[in-house]
Amino acid sequence: MLIRKAHAADAAAILDIILPTIREGSTYALDNAMADSEAIAYWTSAEKETFVAEDGGLVVGTYYLKANQAGGGQHVCNCGFMTKASATGRGVAKRMCQHALAHAKAQGYKAMQFNFVVSTNDRAIQLWQSMGFEIVGRLPLAFLHPHKGYVDALVMHQQL
Amino acid sequence: MLIRKAHAADAAAILDIILPTIREGSTYALDNAMADSEAIAYWTSAEKETFVAEDGGLVVGTYYLKANQAGGGQHVCNCGFMTKASATGRGVAKRMCQHALAHAKAQGYKAMQFNFVVSTNDRAIQLWQSMGFEIVGRLPLAFLHPHKGYVDALVMHQQL
Repeated sequence: MLIRKAHAADAAAILDIILPTIREGSTYALDNAMADSEAIAYWTSAEKETFVAEDGGLVVGTYYLKANQAGGGQHVCNCGFMTKASATGRGVAKRMCQHALAHAKAQGYKAMQFNFVVSTNDRAIQLWQSMGFEIVGRLPLAFLHPHKGYVDALVMHQQL
Repeated sequence: MLIRKAHAADAAAILDIILPTIREGSTYALDNAMADSEAIAYWTSAEKETFVAEDGGLVVGTYYLKANQAGGGQHVCNCGFMTKASATGRGVAKRMCQHALAHAKAQGYKAMQFNFVVSTNDRAIQLWQSMGFEIVGRLPLAFLHPHKGYVDALVMHQQL
């Protein structure tokens, strides 16, 4: 698996990954009706570094990394990860997260924080915990899940 | 004290309040060197409702209220409050927070969350706790304080 910076030419491949997740609306706090153009603009906006994971020449995952806050908070980064539905179970998210942790450290970030991990997203929570993230906050009923109603969201964190 | 929506004509009065706080850099995770124009654009950006507190015809405080997340997270709001340095100790922040809680509830928000309360900001933490906010998260060493080095930041929350 190759993880590399995303280019403009990757837009269609990135949209193939992020749109189903956004439309489904059970893991990210994003407008599930956002236009395709808004979705790609969000995922590749100027303040983010956006990467793709390629397997056998196909883009199977994408992630972004950015400073989580400005000023006195800019030493902590934030990431979002999405894996192509047809590529789940192959460790794509784990490989992207390993890449992100190494890249963030190389960039001088001192910690990585996920601000809003939906508490019903067991697969993600287990993965992040196995990779060293700790739950440092629980936001009560902060997410309206499309099928489960109001559920908590977690703040997860690790020092780099 | 009158709390009302901010107008374009309030820009100078708002800047008189927010610039010293931004420049000092010990309570908000914002670039302390941001231009005046960036500061007012940030505080009054389109996704925010911005208010001012007037006392005797003078603007002594300002706050904004916005959705903290999009999509499944849009029922939780977020606020930022700043009081004019010369007006501290008069309950300006408390009055603005009371106004914000009532306004948020009237707008249909189900909770209010502060994402990044610097842990050395004792005055703010005590005030928010006295007004019903609970600490739901602690972000380890998330803020580089200009005099105290790396300190924690708190996530505070209350249901409405």
